[in-house]
Amino acid sequence: MIYLDHELATPPDEHVIATMKRYMEGQWCGQTAPYAPIHSEEKQAKESIYKLAGADPEDYFVFTSSGAEAVNHVLFSTYMNVTRKTGKHHFMCSALDEAPAILGMMRLEELGGHFQMVKASSEGIVTVKEVAQTLTPRTALLSLSWANGLTGVIQPLEDIVALCEERGILLHVDATHVLGKGHFPFHKCGAHFMTFDGEPLGAPAGTGGMFISKRIESTPLIVGGYEQHSLRAGSLSLPLFYGLAEAAKGAHERADLFCIQSALLRHQFEQALVERLGAKVFFESQMRLPHITALGFLGVTSEALCYLLARRKVYANMGGNRFQQLVNLLKACAISSPLCHGGLSFALGPTTTEEQIALAVQQIVDVVGCLKRYSEHLIHE
Amino acid sequence: MIYLDHELATPPDEHVIATMKRYMEGQWCGQTAPYAPIHSEEKQAKESIYKLAGADPEDYFVFTSSGAEAVNHVLFSTYMNVTRKTGKHHFMCSALDEAPAILGMMRLEELGGHFQMVKASSEGIVTVKEVAQTLTPRTALLSLSWANGLTGVIQPLEDIVALCEERGILLHVDATHVLGKGHFPFHKCGAHFMTFDGEPLGAPAGTGGMFISKRIESTPLIVGGYEQHSLRAGSLSLPLFYGLAEAAKGAHERADLFCIQSALLRHQFEQALVERLGAKVFFESQMRLPHITALGFLGVTSEALCYLLARRKVYANMGGNRFQQLVNLLKACAISSPLCHGGLSFALGPTTTEEQIALAVQQIVDVVGCLKRYSEHLIHE
Repeated sequence: MIYLDHELATPPDEHVIATMKRYMEGQWCGQTAPYAPIHSEEKQAKESIYKLAGADPEDYFVFTSSGAEAVNHVLFSTYMNVTRKTGKHHFMCSALDEAPAILGMMRLEELGGHFQMVKASSEGIVTVKEVAQTLTPRTALLSLSWANGLTGVIQPLEDIVALCEERGILLHVDATHVLGKGHFPFHKCGAHFMTFDGEPLGAPAGTGGMFISKRIESTPLIVGGYEQHSLRAGSLSLPLFYGLAEAAKGAHERADLFCIQSALLRHQFEQALVERLGAKVFFESQMRLPHITALGFLGVTSEALCYLLARRKVYANMGGNRFQQLVNLLKACAISSPLCHGGLSFALGPTTTEEQIALAVQQIVDVVGCLKRYSEHLIHE
Repeated sequence: MIYLDHELATPPDEHVIATMKRYMEGQWCGQTAPYAPIHSEEKQAKESIYKLAGADPEDYFVFTSSGAEAVNHVLFSTYMNVTRKTGKHHFMCSALDEAPAILGMMRLEELGGHFQMVKASSEGIVTVKEVAQTLTPRTALLSLSWANGLTGVIQPLEDIVALCEERGILLHVDATHVLGKGHFPFHKCGAHFMTFDGEPLGAPAGTGGMFISKRIESTPLIVGGYEQHSLRAGSLSLPLFYGLAEAAKGAHERADLFCIQSALLRHQFEQALVERLGAKVFFESQMRLPHITALGFLGVTSEALCYLLARRKVYANMGGNRFQQLVNLLKACAISSPLCHGGLSFALGPTTTEEQIALAVQQIVDVVGCLKRYSEHLIHE
């Protein structure tokens, strides 16, 4: 199996699994009981998460059951604390964002919110000019993915942060794809909320989190208890929480090495497919995360390619569900239609090897060849 | 250690832990991937949960991260689907309910809801008469605990269900404390929503769920994906989901035996404390769950008693956090004040033994004796 879909989920490593197992037994005591033991490792675990996120110790961290929950929290909190109190009801995200932000903002429309999508540029980012053109005096929140999980393109934040600051707009960044893939510190980036899903980080499914800047107040999505600074009711799963912390520690420790190694492997991967198939590397000249590439193959469709590769145990991503569909994302960036329809995204992981990359290239060359021959055959008939 | 706080959390048994461990390794694949494996045990696992809940196969089940999340879902869904559409903005629960329902309804007031508490009767229940007096033509939802987790008193539903049906009011029952403790089938009870937290069931912390009757529509609390009939976005944790299912299976299988055994042990426990300390058994003549007892000890305070017992490794519950405080709950039922302040709740579990009960009695007798001598000493000084 050659797994190149690490931004959907990265397998937890042995340390994460061992940590989870350790917290599986003998740790069932109700966490709100007055007699509940204090876990000596809790402080350290939180520190691992803060360190990976580059958060200030005074920022709040809330553990959630997914990135989706965290994003919903940000939207609901902003609606309650800003929209209901000030009348600012305009919410913005971009075509480069993922389903929870987009669908969450659409739902706020039922509650009197007004949702607008900021146009993406042909560079696969959102420009400050587009943000400036979309915002209104009633804008409450701008939500952006810090980097897109299918193209790897990193969103420049600096000018947008300055603009939001000037106009009094809250900024949420989804850091799901950037954590552990370079230097993306929350406390320096100027955003008010930062959320992430645990799965692409090598944490178990069912984990996520959010940082809330010490500068602002937040309101829970789930009320009903004093857990987590009264920001999220419900007992949390200790195996999941400590598993996330262990994954954060690992991701932080290996970040530099991972960036170098995966950038090298990705280069080999892209070069080989450009040479052998004339593949198009989308957004090649942009600032990209080191481990993600979106490639366009002329004359084939994403679905067929993705499906046939999976049958040969080569796993890639064409978007869908919590991602946008890659084809829509590329279209939003004004990429020409035939290239969009043959687009596929690959995300390397910490265990990806040179040998796997070579094998993946061979399989892709084979499958694209098969598909093209099949199409030509159909045309000739 | 003598653990008599099973309604806060019941330790997962060996089968639950083994199941969780089994799903900890090699099961990390992104669940929304087109190539994700179908888990052959999924159907069976869901059946275990449906069976325990006595739900109809056509009712929807949604896995959540806690009972609190499930309750928040019910409230938000009702607000979106009923209040926003029909103008019915009146929400009712009772003083016998728990924090997520009470705080959740309070929060709906910020969104234009109107929250009213139905008075509890001196029998520790909510009467249909009180419900009838509290409801209005604009009532959207009544939320009730099917049984109270501190007193064990079972809420009779029949007349209330009929009244809700007649007046077009949605009914939510929190089944956290009744599942596995007798016969409490969702599909026969007439409620529209049933929620529960996994912990008191012997499932791992961080689990819960809700059933939504096939008769009604629901709206997610967490949007952003097609997971779980589009009713809750975010990858779920397979170890937690299968752990919950295994706990449901176990609880269902042992329910009859557990009811008989714990009723016997509770009787011994109560009798001994009545004889030796003149303890008051609250709501003794009511229909109660077989394993819970709330006892009043004159001349001592709950806090001191609970604290000193915990120091002797006897664990009981005086309420707080997600429960109501027992003292407030008793006051709401018009119990005389001195008895309320010396109230303490005990919940037996499937592993509680006769020997433990005898030891617990002895420790309680000792601690109450100490506390009384100490008070008398203070008075004489």
